[in-house]
Amino acid sequence: MAAFSFNKLVIFGVGLIGGSLARALRERARATGEVVGVGRSIKSVERALELGLIDSAVSLDDDHALELALRDADFVLVAAPVAQTEPLLRRIAPFLYARTIVTDVGSTKNDVVAAAHAALGDRVGQFVPGHPIAGRESSGPDAAIPDLYVDRNVVLCPLPENPPEVVERVADMWFATGASVHRMTAGQHDSVLASVSHLPHVLSFALVEMILQAPDAALKFSFAAGGFRDFTRIAASSPEMWRDVCIANRAALLTEIDAYTNVLARFRQAIETSDGAALEAAFERSRTARTEWQHGGAIKAADESAQ
Amino acid sequence: MAAFSFNKLVIFGVGLIGGSLARALRERARATGEVVGVGRSIKSVERALELGLIDSAVSLDDDHALELALRDADFVLVAAPVAQTEPLLRRIAPFLYARTIVTDVGSTKNDVVAAAHAALGDRVGQFVPGHPIAGRESSGPDAAIPDLYVDRNVVLCPLPENPPEVVERVADMWFATGASVHRMTAGQHDSVLASVSHLPHVLSFALVEMILQAPDAALKFSFAAGGFRDFTRIAASSPEMWRDVCIANRAALLTEIDAYTNVLARFRQAIETSDGAALEAAFERSRTARTEWQHGGAIKAADESAQ
Repeated sequence: MAAFSFNKLVIFGVGLIGGSLARALRERARATGEVVGVGRSIKSVERALELGLIDSAVSLDDDHALELALRDADFVLVAAPVAQTEPLLRRIAPFLYARTIVTDVGSTKNDVVAAAHAALGDRVGQFVPGHPIAGRESSGPDAAIPDLYVDRNVVLCPLPENPPEVVERVADMWFATGASVHRMTAGQHDSVLASVSHLPHVLSFALVEMILQAPDAALKFSFAAGGFRDFTRIAASSPEMWRDVCIANRAALLTEIDAYTNVLARFRQAIETSDGAALEAAFERSRTARTEWQHGGAIKAADESAQ
Repeated sequence: MAAFSFNKLVIFGVGLIGGSLARALRERARATGEVVGVGRSIKSVERALELGLIDSAVSLDDDHALELALRDADFVLVAAPVAQTEPLLRRIAPFLYARTIVTDVGSTKNDVVAAAHAALGDRVGQFVPGHPIAGRESSGPDAAIPDLYVDRNVVLCPLPENPPEVVERVADMWFATGASVHRMTAGQHDSVLASVSHLPHVLSFALVEMILQAPDAALKFSFAAGGFRDFTRIAASSPEMWRDVCIANRAALLTEIDAYTNVLARFRQAIETSDGAALEAAFERSRTARTEWQHGGAIKAADESAQ
C-alpha cells in the first residue's frame, strides 16, 4: 500500500461511502490527518462523530463553521446523491481554497462534470470526478467499514483542466484504501456503467413491475424461486437513487436499452421459430463469458469489429 | 411429515433431482422400499449405486433388465431433460404395469402432457405430470441431498384421466420429502413459470449476449460488480436445458417476452422524457413487492382487473 498522508479531509455526506473512506484512510493507511464531516444538519453527522469516523461535525447551513472547515483543507469529498452535486459545489465554492482538491463518488460522471463546470467555473481544475465501484446493501455511517474498497475498482475521469499532480493525489488517496484506480473519460465511464450496472437495475425493476401487472401476480410470486431471487435482488434498490441515475445517465442508458431490446427481439425470434441452434449458441456464449468473468478471466468481445 | 411407504420406485435419471428424492424418501421419510436406478448406460447409474442412492442399476438399453425393474413397481419417476420425456415413456410403455404410477419432474408441463398422451395413449391416466421447483448449482448423483425439497414447492398438474387416488399418492410422495404440494393446470403452470423463471433466464442470457457484442466488451466486464453478478448468475445455467425449456414453453414465454418488452418500452419513454415521478413510482412498487416477497408476505396484483 502506498504511504498516503493529508492534513485535512472534509467529507460532505458521512454515510457508507464517505465513512468507509475515512475509516480506510485511518485504519488501513494509518493516515493521521483531521477529518471533518459535513451534513445537512449537525444531527445528521452526529452519529458519524459518535462512531469516531470524523473528528468534528459541521452543519451545511452554518456559514462560519463551513468556512472554518474548508480552511486549508487538502481534500473535499462530495459523497452525496448525484443530484445534489451542483448545489453542494455551489455551497462550497465561496470558501474553497486554491490548494484544495475536490472529488466525488457519483455513479454518473457526465452530469457531474457539467455540475462542476456550472458551480466552480474557472476553478473546475480543482475538481477530479471519481467513482468508487463499491457498495453494500446497508447504508449510513453505521455501515461504514475500513475494507469497503479493498480490491474494488475506482474510476477517475480527469478533466482537461486538472493539473496532473492533482489527479495523482486523488489516485493516491483511493489506492491507499486498497482499491485499483483506473482512468477513463466521463463518457466512457457512463457508457460502461450504463451497460453493466444501470441497465441491469432497470431490467430487474421492469421484471417485478411486469409481474405486478398480471392479474395472477400473487400466484406468480408464490412460485418464484432462486433464479428470480438473484435476478431481482437489485429491484429492492433505492427508487430515488435509481431514478436520479436513470435521468442523469439518460443518453448512455437509452443506447443500452435499445441494444438490449434488439438482442431480446432476436432471442424472441429464435424462440418463435424454435431455432434451438441459435438459442443454444447464444446461451453457451453467455455461460462461457459469465463463468470466465466469475473466475476473473479475460473476456473477449464476440467480434471486435462488431458494433 | 406424512407416513409414506412404497415397495418399488424406479428412477429414470439418478442425478440431483432423482437422487435427492431417493435420499429424502429414505433418510427423511424412513421409507424402506426398493429403489432402482435406470440410466442410458449402466455406467451412468453406477455412481448412484456406489453412493447408496439406489439398490440396483439398470441400463435403459437392456430389455430384460428394464422389464424386471418395472415389474410391480409402485412408482416410476422420469427425471431426465424434458425433451427426453416422450422417448423415455415410449421405452417404458411395453413394460408398464397397470398399477404403476408414473410421474416426472420437468420444468414445462404442456409439452410433457402431450408427450405422455403420445407415448402412453389410453394409459395416460397412470401419468401424473409434476414439477418440483428446487435446484442447486451442482448436478449429478454426487449433488443429491436429502433436504433438497424441504419447504420447496412441488406443482402437480393432474390430467382429467388421472384417478384421484393416483394423484394423491404422488402428492403424498412429495409431501414426505418436506415439500409443499400444489395443483394447477399445465397451462397455468407454464404461464407462471414462464414469468418467474423462464423469462428471467432469457433476460439474463440476453444481457451477457448484448455486452459481448459491444466492441469494448472486455472493458465493460472488467467494471461489472455486485449488481451484475446477481443479475447474471442464471446466465451461467445449462444452455441445452434452457434451449429446451424455451422451445417447450414457447407460447407462454412469447407472451411474457411481449409483456416485458412493453414495460421496458414504458420505462424507456420515462427515461427519455426525464419523467422522474413515473420512474420513482415504478421502482418503488418493485422494491416494495420484492421486499415483501423476500420476507414471505402476500403480494397483491397492481390492479386485479388489469390484463
